Amino acid sequence: MSQVPSPVTVIDQLPEALQQRKALARRFKDIEYRHYRDDWRHIPRGTAVFGETVVYGYPHIGRVLALEAGLKAHFQAPFWAEEKINGFNVRIVRIGEQVLALSRGGFVCPFTTDRLPDLMPLEVFTRHPDLVVCAEVAGPDNPYLESSPPFIEEDVELFVFDLMRKNQAGFLPYRDKQRLIETFNLPPVPLHGYFHPHEVGRIRKLMLRLHEEWREGLVFKEDSPRDHRAKYVTGNINIDDLRAAADNLLDLPAEYVTNRLLRLSLFVEEHGLPVDAELERALGAALLEGLHQAVAKFRREHRVYTTFRCRFRERENAELMLEHLKRASHQVQIRRRDLRREGDHWLLEFDRIYPSLTGMLGDLLAGRLVFD
Amino acid sequence: MSQVPSPVTVIDQLPEALQQRKALARRFKDIEYRHYRDDWRHIPRGTAVFGETVVYGYPHIGRVLALEAGLKAHFQAPFWAEEKINGFNVRIVRIGEQVLALSRGGFVCPFTTDRLPDLMPLEVFTRHPDLVVCAEVAGPDNPYLESSPPFIEEDVELFVFDLMRKNQAGFLPYRDKQRLIETFNLPPVPLHGYFHPHEVGRIRKLMLRLHEEWREGLVFKEDSPRDHRAKYVTGNINIDDLRAAADNLLDLPAEYVTNRLLRLSLFVEEHGLPVDAELERALGAALLEGLHQAVAKFRREHRVYTTFRCRFRERENAELMLEHLKRASHQVQIRRRDLRREGDHWLLEFDRIYPSLTGMLGDLLAGRLVFD
Repeated sequence: MSQVPSPVTVIDQLPEALQQRKALARRFKDIEYRHYRDDWRHIPRGTAVFGETVVYGYPHIGRVLALEAGLKAHFQAPFWAEEKINGFNVRIVRIGEQVLALSRGGFVCPFTTDRLPDLMPLEVFTRHPDLVVCAEVAGPDNPYLESSPPFIEEDVELFVFDLMRKNQAGFLPYRDKQRLIETFNLPPVPLHGYFHPHEVGRIRKLMLRLHEEWREGLVFKEDSPRDHRAKYVTGNINIDDLRAAADNLLDLPAEYVTNRLLRLSLFVEEHGLPVDAELERALGAALLEGLHQAVAKFRREHRVYTTFRCRFRERENAELMLEHLKRASHQVQIRRRDLRREGDHWLLEFDRIYPSLTGMLGDLLAGRLVFD
Repeated sequence: MSQVPSPVTVIDQLPEALQQRKALARRFKDIEYRHYRDDWRHIPRGTAVFGETVVYGYPHIGRVLALEAGLKAHFQAPFWAEEKINGFNVRIVRIGEQVLALSRGGFVCPFTTDRLPDLMPLEVFTRHPDLVVCAEVAGPDNPYLESSPPFIEEDVELFVFDLMRKNQAGFLPYRDKQRLIETFNLPPVPLHGYFHPHEVGRIRKLMLRLHEEWREGLVFKEDSPRDHRAKYVTGNINIDDLRAAADNLLDLPAEYVTNRLLRLSLFVEEHGLPVDAELERALGAALLEGLHQAVAKFRREHRVYTTFRCRFRERENAELMLEHLKRASHQVQIRRRDLRREGDHWLLEFDRIYPSLTGMLGDLLAGRLVFD
């Protein structure tokens, strides 16, 4: 953290970063702000600036692909193992009278901001107005991701895993975080225990249970002043990732598929799992079913898309969310399907249309000759 | 073909092409030659020059991924359907007293050249010294490919599919080719019939049989002066390709995996096949088993490799083959295992060591933190 620039520097760098499009100026309702959308001169991606207030970006956490070797190589003291939740990262912060949720990239997420009163108690910000609550939002009805944790049946939930302060780059110490979470009744990520680095057997057992339950994995946080961290995911979450990516394969980075196949293989090998019919079938199905549906959908409707749905308390925020998605989606096209009252909420339905696969299927199904 | 430069131009362009490393000067024993290793100014990749004699490269054949639409779009007359064999492409030509086999890229393949007397009758070159025989060499014991047709149990076989002439870029007319193949008893690729473009049903049935037998597919050749061509492969050959690629995934082009998944999906969809447990398992196994073995092999031997074996009539040619592979393999490392007499042949065994996967597994299994 020591190399992260001070708030004064973060603000001083803004004009140049804005000019180079490394930072963007935005507005959410009547709140103006700027945010760094890439890592830039040690300022972490997602750092947002509201007037004189800097909310630092959530730092990258390294991933190990070998559990035992990774723990040995990186942990010198006991650590907590928190569950890694398959959702999207937000930082929640009070700006004036409004509590906002910032995405990983640093823009105000209209969806999460709208739903905050449903997701967590907000009194914490009255007593601690300088707090930044770092959390994962996950669930089947979210505007960003096709996959979600198996234990959330509908809508979304929020899981707090870190606390920061405005104008400070590091995290609050672990025990301070736990105390505040308890005091203010914040919803925490599941804490799966406190381990010594040599207790690999216990962690393996825990990982295998998470794997069997198709959960994502663990984040290890060292009980030491340096607060060292690493994450490690289950084998099955890679299959889940591949399933979610099937209709978007052509727009993903080249190594998306191979990375996940490699992670899955390493997990299976380290934990001595059999490469059996069940696993093989799960992987094959994840890759094939989505593509097969995409082809069938293209034949019927001449486009490949996925329908997303999410709930809002205020209609205006649903409109802002759609606008934001349309502006932010360079490759993918957003098509509004419906916005209607349902119970206490407004239900928004929209499609993400994948132009690369749509275009390629259009060509291929018309019989185009490909030279490869 | 009309835009392919004349032999004189091909020879005139050589100095510049050599300077730009688009062509290379080589020697096979006492025969000196040059070959274009990339398409260059309409000269096809693989074009080789022996003195004043030009052997044109084998042209690219376009691939359709939708059978019915592809046939409709590209064929205006009846066509022959020849089997596409899963091997490597060679052009066989007599230079002086020596009959040589040129690879797709235009170098003299010491392996195929050595084995020609075992693979086909060579008398055709006595009567027709200007002939260029285009063929696929395939089988489990070959020095290039991990996969091979299911109907070849050991060693390699050769399948002739086209004839050309020295110093001419086009193919001999189909019926002339068939006559020469019969007259000189050349081993042909299986010819699966003569079809009108509207007979999609018959071709589908044939394709399904090839798919079920895990064969590669068909090449369609129009019975017309323009000699139009297209290829179409089975769904299962994509699974085979993925299996063969598992330990080399990191060095393959980005789209290698996604292309094959897409081809498989399109095949399954067009032919109305079920996406069932058998198919899913076959795909999952193809991707997982190779990687799993690679990880296990790395744990034991600290490197990821595949062992190849192939037979030679002359020991010298085995040595030349190894030398050639070592020179030509930029990424992959070649390690000689054994060269010994076995029956009438010399049996060469060597490993291809995949440095990308070897290096990455080394890092990952040591517990390296990955930031992604």
